[in-house]
Formats: sequence, structure tokens, C-alpha cells
Amino acid sequence: MADDEVKLYEDGRSPYVSRVKIALNMKGIKYESLVEDLSNKSADLLNHNPVYKKVPVLVHNGNPISESLVIIEYIDDVWEGVPILPRDPYEKAVARFWAKYVADTCNPAIYEVHRSYGDEQAIAKASAKLQILENKLITTGKKFFGGDNINLVDIAAVYIAYWPEIVEEAKGIKFYTREKFPKITEWADNFLNCQVVKETLPPRAHLLEYFLNRHRIRCNGTPK
Amino acid sequence: MADDEVKLYEDGRSPYVSRVKIALNMKGIKYESLVEDLSNKSADLLNHNPVYKKVPVLVHNGNPISESLVIIEYIDDVWEGVPILPRDPYEKAVARFWAKYVADTCNPAIYEVHRSYGDEQAIAKASAKLQILENKLITTGKKFFGGDNINLVDIAAVYIAYWPEIVEEAKGIKFYTREKFPKITEWADNFLNCQVVKETLPPRAHLLEYFLNRHRIRCNGTPK
Repeated sequence: MADDEVKLYEDGRSPYVSRVKIALNMKGIKYESLVEDLSNKSADLLNHNPVYKKVPVLVHNGNPISESLVIIEYIDDVWEGVPILPRDPYEKAVARFWAKYVADTCNPAIYEVHRSYGDEQAIAKASAKLQILENKLITTGKKFFGGDNINLVDIAAVYIAYWPEIVEEAKGIKFYTREKFPKITEWADNFLNCQVVKETLPPRAHLLEYFLNRHRIRCNGTPK
Repeated sequence: MADDEVKLYEDGRSPYVSRVKIALNMKGIKYESLVEDLSNKSADLLNHNPVYKKVPVLVHNGNPISESLVIIEYIDDVWEGVPILPRDPYEKAVARFWAKYVADTCNPAIYEVHRSYGDEQAIAKASAKLQILENKLITTGKKFFGGDNINLVDIAAVYIAYWPEIVEEAKGIKFYTREKFPKITEWADNFLNCQVVKETLPPRAHLLEYFLNRHRIRCNGTPK
């Protein structure tokens, strides 16, 4: 599909964008990156994603697709090469279950710990949710959630691998630590070390500055 | 796949279970229904769905699958016959987007209207979310979200088609009405009239009694 036109609307900071970029990298797809200013979204973005008005949006030969996990399934459906979802229907269902667990259960639980600046109940809830992922890595004894190679579940979990540690430094929270989650943090090291993942991550300093600024606004009412 | 063993753990009341039953009906799959007492869940259910401990769980030849939309994709992957998702990758992505919109955005917005007994802000939010579905039906001019036939999106929306009207009768709320949502309620009539859907619905009187009891507990502190 050498003549394909692939555009990705992104913001240079979102884990949801990183998910899509990892999938594009795994398939070796060339794409044009269109960086949006989220405080002044382009007419094209609003037109392509009128329901959520959010990045990422992938536009393939003029056809827009939103929602990172939907985009990843589309990429895996359309392009050959490294599989992102298992080909066996049962293994595929299991991968979808865990990707959904990460997206719908773990990520919101971590957001709540950060939003609440480490509320005890939020920490108890997020710890229980992440312990299930920790146990999954212990039980399978594999390097990645996908086994010996990354798959949909690892990609869905890119936020957990990279963002919380930076948010916690900015906000002075200690929740997502090596002591508490030794297997998940070991997985994160391995995952972030994959070339297809590494290239998609916003620079640490850039993210840290962004979260520090948000923290300052919350504490002082004004950005620095 | 005549020798397949298919079991469905269910509760006789859940829209998530109805979703799976509609998919099984569409494919003409025979299954054994195992009705759980949710106040005293079976060891088998807890064993098959240790993460959420919830119905529905489909067990196909010994392999358990949870999460209704994941189960439906599995059913469509494994069994031939009437397609539940479109076969074209872009149309498939569009169907997944809308099924997710219904499941993650519309349903929770309606739950919140009911939980709050018609809080104004909750009503404004849910109205805006449902108006998007209303507009979608107006724009396409088709009988179903899937077009001339039902697909994943219609199945995902079975809660909207059947449950809110009953909950609102029990709680004395007027939100989901024909006047407000003429297209969605017309779609609901058509959808609920399909034989594969009709057979999966818990009896209205049974659901009404259940929600009336919950309402009485909330108002009086004791069931009738």
C-alpha cells in the first residue's frame, strides 16, 4: 500500500497518540504528523472527529478514524506485517479483554490518584487494579503482556509505562514506584526500550514542564 | 461447529447479557444458559471472570470470555453466518467507534440521570450525548444504526432501546421520551421488534418490579 496517504492528528503529549504511533511503527507505515494546538483546534480536526473533538485522529486515504484502540485495530486489519492482535480468535479476545481492562479500569484509577494528589481511597483502589496486572506478569513469566513480543495490551498500557512517574515527580506524589510494582516497572523498562515505542514518547523534560505548570496553576492559581 | 459446547453465565436481567444473547441468536448458536444468583455467585463464575466477577461470561469449549463487546467480536470471529461487524475494515472501525460511544458515553450519561433522579446537569449532559445518536439516525435515514440490518452498534445500544423507559416508570422520571428522542425511540421500536432481539429481553414486569423495589429501598430504607 505504497500510495496510501496516512495523516495523524496529534498533540505531541498524549499517551493515546503514542498508542497509535507505536502501531504505525510496528507496521512500518509512513505518515504525516499534524500537530494540533489543543487550545485552538483546527477546523480539520473538528471536522474529522466531531463527536469528541480530540486527538488522535488517523486519516487514511481521506477516511478519518478516532479512538486510539479502534484506530489500532484498523491498522492491524488493513496493513500486513507484524501482527498487533493475536490471530487466534480466543487469544485475540483475551488481548482485547486486557487492553480494555488497562484502558477502562487501570488508567482512570491512576488518574484519580494524581487528580486527588494521593487520596487514600484512590490509592487503595488503583493499587488493587494494578496488582491484577502485576500478578498477570508474574503468572505468565513473560517479558511483555503480549508474551515474548508486544501486542495490543502493551500498547494500551503505554500510559502506565511512561506518564505516571513524570506526573508524580511534578506533583510530589509517590504512588507508582518500583517497590510497590516491581513487575510492572520491569515490564515498563523493557517496553520503553523497544525502538518502535521509544520513538513515540514525548520528551521527558517537555512533559515534566507541562505537568509542573499544571501543578503550579492548581496551587497558585497562575502559571509560572 | 455442531459439537461445540457453549455456555452463558447470565442473571436474567442485564442488558450486557442481552447483548451477547442477540449475537448468539444472530448466528443461530445453541447454548446452555446458567442463571447466576448475583448475591451468591457460583465458584464457576468467579473462576471464569476473576477480574470483574460479573456476568455475562461466555464459555466456548472450556474457554471463558468476559466483557460483552469482546464476547460479541469473538462470536463474530468464530462463527460464520450473518455478519455482526461489517467486513470492510473502515466500516468495521466506524461500527466499533459508535459501539464504544454508546457503551462508554451514552449509557453512563443515562445511568447518571437515573441515579440522580433527574438532576438538571445530568439531563443536559445525557441529552447532548443522545442527540448525537438522534442526528446519526436522521443523517443516514436508515432503520438501524447498522443500516438496513442490525449490527454491533444496535446490539451495543440494547440498553437504550429497552431499559430506560422501565427504570423511569419505576422512579417517576421523565427523560427518555418519544417527544425528546423521536428517532431513537422509533429505532428502538424497530430493533425490539426483531425476533433475535425480542427473545433476549427480560420480561418487562420482572424488570419493573426489580427497579420499583430498588426505588422503595432508596426512598424508605427497606424493600416492600
